[in-house]
Amino acid sequence: MLPIAIAQMEVIPGHPDRNAATMLRMIADAKKQGAGLILFPEMAIPGYLLGDTWEQESFIRDCESYGQDIIAASKGICVMFGNIAADWTKKNNDGRVRKYNAFFTAQDGKLVHPDSMPYPFVIKTLMPNYREFDDTRHFFSLQKLARELGTTPAALLSPVSLKLGGKNYQVGCLLCEDGWSEDYEVAPLQLLEHGEPIDFYVNISASPYTLGKNDKRNRVFSAQAKEAHAPLFYVNCIGLQNNGKTIYTFDGSSTVYNENGSVVSVAPEYRESLEIFDLDSLSSRPAAVQKPEKEVAHIYRALHYGVRRFLENIHMKNVVIGISGGIDSAVAAALYCQVVGPEHLLLINMPSVFNSETTKGLSQQLAERLGCEYMIVPIQESVDHTRAQLESCPVTLQKDGTEKHLSVSSFVLENIQARDRSARVLAGAAAAFGGGFTCNANKAETTVGYSTLYGDQSGFLAALADLWKHQVYDLARYMNEEIYHREVVPQGIIDIVPSAELSSAQNVDEGKGDPIKYPYHDYLFRSFIERWRKATPEDLLVWYQDGTVEEHIGCEKGLVKKYFPTPKDFIADLERWWNLFTGMAVAKRIQAPPILAVSRRAYGFDHREAQNGPYYTRKYRQLKEALLNREA
Amino acid sequence: MLPIAIAQMEVIPGHPDRNAATMLRMIADAKKQGAGLILFPEMAIPGYLLGDTWEQESFIRDCESYGQDIIAASKGICVMFGNIAADWTKKNNDGRVRKYNAFFTAQDGKLVHPDSMPYPFVIKTLMPNYREFDDTRHFFSLQKLARELGTTPAALLSPVSLKLGGKNYQVGCLLCEDGWSEDYEVAPLQLLEHGEPIDFYVNISASPYTLGKNDKRNRVFSAQAKEAHAPLFYVNCIGLQNNGKTIYTFDGSSTVYNENGSVVSVAPEYRESLEIFDLDSLSSRPAAVQKPEKEVAHIYRALHYGVRRFLENIHMKNVVIGISGGIDSAVAAALYCQVVGPEHLLLINMPSVFNSETTKGLSQQLAERLGCEYMIVPIQESVDHTRAQLESCPVTLQKDGTEKHLSVSSFVLENIQARDRSARVLAGAAAAFGGGFTCNANKAETTVGYSTLYGDQSGFLAALADLWKHQVYDLARYMNEEIYHREVVPQGIIDIVPSAELSSAQNVDEGKGDPIKYPYHDYLFRSFIERWRKATPEDLLVWYQDGTVEEHIGCEKGLVKKYFPTPKDFIADLERWWNLFTGMAVAKRIQAPPILAVSRRAYGFDHREAQNGPYYTRKYRQLKEALLNREA
Repeated sequence: MLPIAIAQMEVIPGHPDRNAATMLRMIADAKKQGAGLILFPEMAIPGYLLGDTWEQESFIRDCESYGQDIIAASKGICVMFGNIAADWTKKNNDGRVRKYNAFFTAQDGKLVHPDSMPYPFVIKTLMPNYREFDDTRHFFSLQKLARELGTTPAALLSPVSLKLGGKNYQVGCLLCEDGWSEDYEVAPLQLLEHGEPIDFYVNISASPYTLGKNDKRNRVFSAQAKEAHAPLFYVNCIGLQNNGKTIYTFDGSSTVYNENGSVVSVAPEYRESLEIFDLDSLSSRPAAVQKPEKEVAHIYRALHYGVRRFLENIHMKNVVIGISGGIDSAVAAALYCQVVGPEHLLLINMPSVFNSETTKGLSQQLAERLGCEYMIVPIQESVDHTRAQLESCPVTLQKDGTEKHLSVSSFVLENIQARDRSARVLAGAAAAFGGGFTCNANKAETTVGYSTLYGDQSGFLAALADLWKHQVYDLARYMNEEIYHREVVPQGIIDIVPSAELSSAQNVDEGKGDPIKYPYHDYLFRSFIERWRKATPEDLLVWYQDGTVEEHIGCEKGLVKKYFPTPKDFIADLERWWNLFTGMAVAKRIQAPPILAVSRRAYGFDHREAQNGPYYTRKYRQLKEALLNREA
Repeated sequence: MLPIAIAQMEVIPGHPDRNAATMLRMIADAKKQGAGLILFPEMAIPGYLLGDTWEQESFIRDCESYGQDIIAASKGICVMFGNIAADWTKKNNDGRVRKYNAFFTAQDGKLVHPDSMPYPFVIKTLMPNYREFDDTRHFFSLQKLARELGTTPAALLSPVSLKLGGKNYQVGCLLCEDGWSEDYEVAPLQLLEHGEPIDFYVNISASPYTLGKNDKRNRVFSAQAKEAHAPLFYVNCIGLQNNGKTIYTFDGSSTVYNENGSVVSVAPEYRESLEIFDLDSLSSRPAAVQKPEKEVAHIYRALHYGVRRFLENIHMKNVVIGISGGIDSAVAAALYCQVVGPEHLLLINMPSVFNSETTKGLSQQLAERLGCEYMIVPIQESVDHTRAQLESCPVTLQKDGTEKHLSVSSFVLENIQARDRSARVLAGAAAAFGGGFTCNANKAETTVGYSTLYGDQSGFLAALADLWKHQVYDLARYMNEEIYHREVVPQGIIDIVPSAELSSAQNVDEGKGDPIKYPYHDYLFRSFIERWRKATPEDLLVWYQDGTVEEHIGCEKGLVKKYFPTPKDFIADLERWWNLFTGMAVAKRIQAPPILAVSRRAYGFDHREAQNGPYYTRKYRQLKEALLNREA
């Protein structure tokens, strides 16, 4: 019998003192419960997403020092944990000190040296260097080390030999990406299987939450356990980590796979947990029953946890939300109200002459149903003053004294309104309320920059900016049904046409609204960013020619014909949004608030971009010409 | 005789069509001038800093297609150029198509196959993965390929054999970082030297400008040429490329080193040039005379070029700058005036009750001296309205009808003023003027977030945000003396105490101003970010204990004692700024405008950071306790 404790801890990035304290507490707990071995996640001491904090030598030494505390605590229990490991005598390729993403095993106050490693720890072999991951920027891989030593990863990788309860165990130690070897030329798990049989595998991870990732992991890791005929313990952290622009929740969901590849236990999402499993009875345990859930339930949990932890991290208790009577701000309000409570939530409606009684009424209704603080701050007087001032103050060319006046167009006035609301009213009110104000942009708007910089594009956090418009509607319905169990987001808000109400051309009572046709554009835009093989106008025209646009982008059938009677219409729409997506929207995203990521590709540090302007390939231009000629 | 043309072209990132057109034009020119070989920079066709555009397969195919045009044009001339190369049958480690950063040689309309490469091009061996570079994210290195093929980089690297003018040449082909091998375990240049003697080396680069980099390159590359007894042609592009948040100028400065290691020619900075050199007469050419210049001259050229090309790229002709009578906005005004001309520059002074006659007068004087458009837009009325509105509109708790009112503190009012100026006046005026408004923040303010979000922290570009305050002053004096040859930045602006003038506590006429003591804090902050071994409070306390703070950070001697009589004072100051630098300032930088980089470490995508809050190491806390106890 070997009782193994899975310590699904919250890792606080950049705070080794707090993480070490958590670990010492959980070690003491596990000992009390009779565990012989306790497993902690990858980078449990430093955290994982730290930007270039890895370049501070004093920080690395601090992590080493806290690592020593954990090693010292391994008396009467064996402790496996992730930490940064430095070799102060060697360099990384950036010329700074050599750093490894390392898997430590400690027992009786000492490190257990893996048989064939040149260090007393296991080194991560595979370094993710896509999406939000920058492992290669800071960590020296086992592959590089093997090359430097003139040997191979296979020669360096071996199980860790443990003696526990009088019995010998061979443990296959993996770090996160080491278990996702499909696209690499080596598979660490297979390389481990060359000596004595392995009794069980441990994959310590720092794996950010992404919609659908856990299902994929269960398929991949189940197959690994089954093929190796050995149990596999997947230990993930919980918490919130970020790369500045993009914020990730870590859901935990630590999972035990038995030697048949069955999932025998899944730790709760987003909760600390310490569970103990007897190694010898895993094969006889029944498979854990995981009831399938709707995508929106996962989204809600990730957002709720992400918002809550983000607010706690920045010590913000009070939140201000500008509400328009539209869906995005209403969903944001319902979400934040769950996190901070109605007394700490101030909704502000800021009507101008263009705002309808309909949306003003819906805003009021929403506030009433949430029971939160509510304020109405009209902006017309301020907007009129700004316009008058800009048009009346003389502009004088100093070199010759020529005087002229600026003229404020209706388009300029639209943006003046948006900035008046956010940078004047919301920012001032939030400071006076002792908190911050939110950005309620969704992913479709964010994709094409359908927003005003320093206006509705601003805020301390963009919690909904990784959700397409249809996911925002799903979330409204889900919160009404499953969270509040009543219609807190009024049906009128769900039903009304999406509109900015910044001019008479956007009159909701006449059914006029946004130029984005969400049932189609949600999916078109998604193909630009989330699709594995990123689509460009060239791909779209190829599909258009083949009549397969809807199939490829995943929207409802028939929409292309409905919205775009001719190739010219289709092309004009495509170029309009592509120009914005790769043009002005990039400039806006550079200055956008941090985004809470849930999708397979979020803006910011996940999908990285340069402000290089729109581009159309040669083939696109040829296809376009052919299509337009065919039409003519 | 072998006439070799160095084609120092502007590379436009993400626009293969325009780059290929430039190359075809330069090839025709070189042919006309009798060149036998023409050399283009690294990634001449796609550009280098493209974010995740590398994931668009249609873009990669487009680059291949334009590469074919260049190959076809190699009739009567040999063409060496950089481009992306794809192997559509293989994968990168991210699972996407295999991409190489490649060096192509074309002759007679065909590619010249390097002797021992598995592809008809040379593959970049060393992948920079620090600062702004993300090579490993997208490109498969020669080292990885060697590992995959079960061989070594040495076995794959060989010179390219050329027959030119009836003579055989062995050319050592290198891509940028391949020439900077100091911190890597292999040195491609040395690996090339194992067969026939090499006649000359070509290093094609896409090397962003950084203060001091060219001097270092001359030392490194001169030594390489000398040691190899062969000339080395360094071919760099000009242009402006960016990673979204951080913008880099590419200065060209293509250089020819002869076999003695002498610099025989340097192409002009920031200008296209096509120069032809006879290979055989390089050793007899005199060393190029490079007159040493002040750092500020380099800074000015980089900023002027960067601002000019940035404005051209976004098609912006008119610029609005809010001027306060302080140094940062004055320097910005003088700089932009050189780029856009006085008719396209609108300076706006926006006084409140806290602005002195002194700074209002200096603003007017600056505008007069530049001869540009000038406007005065007072903000007091609007600020008073905002305050009154926020304090008078009732806030009602919906669940019980309790009514209260917000109260606007003097601190909140400071930020209301700053936002009123930028988000209300400047943004509106810029839109009406048909342009954008600038962010004039310097690097010291940016480091600690001494700025207001959506206020002075906003703008389309932060051109001075990579300059410390003392560099901003240098630039003022330099422009007066060397560019304008008259005092356009009034001496009064250079002499006045830096102040935000947002409250009566910041009265310039009483000599009151910013809390930042620039002669010390410029250097303290620089140690946090630009120092090779990034300093943290722990390092500062160690130095403080040793009495070596000034020596380590590089400021004037005696300042520590002058500003901080006791350890308690020193520690309080240190923690104040470290808390801001790693706290609120990170949040502000996430939403800051793009920064024009000139230093060895700029904010944004160069120095990457996470919003993780301040942290003090265990050793720091021990040192602090000891210092405070000693004091007590």
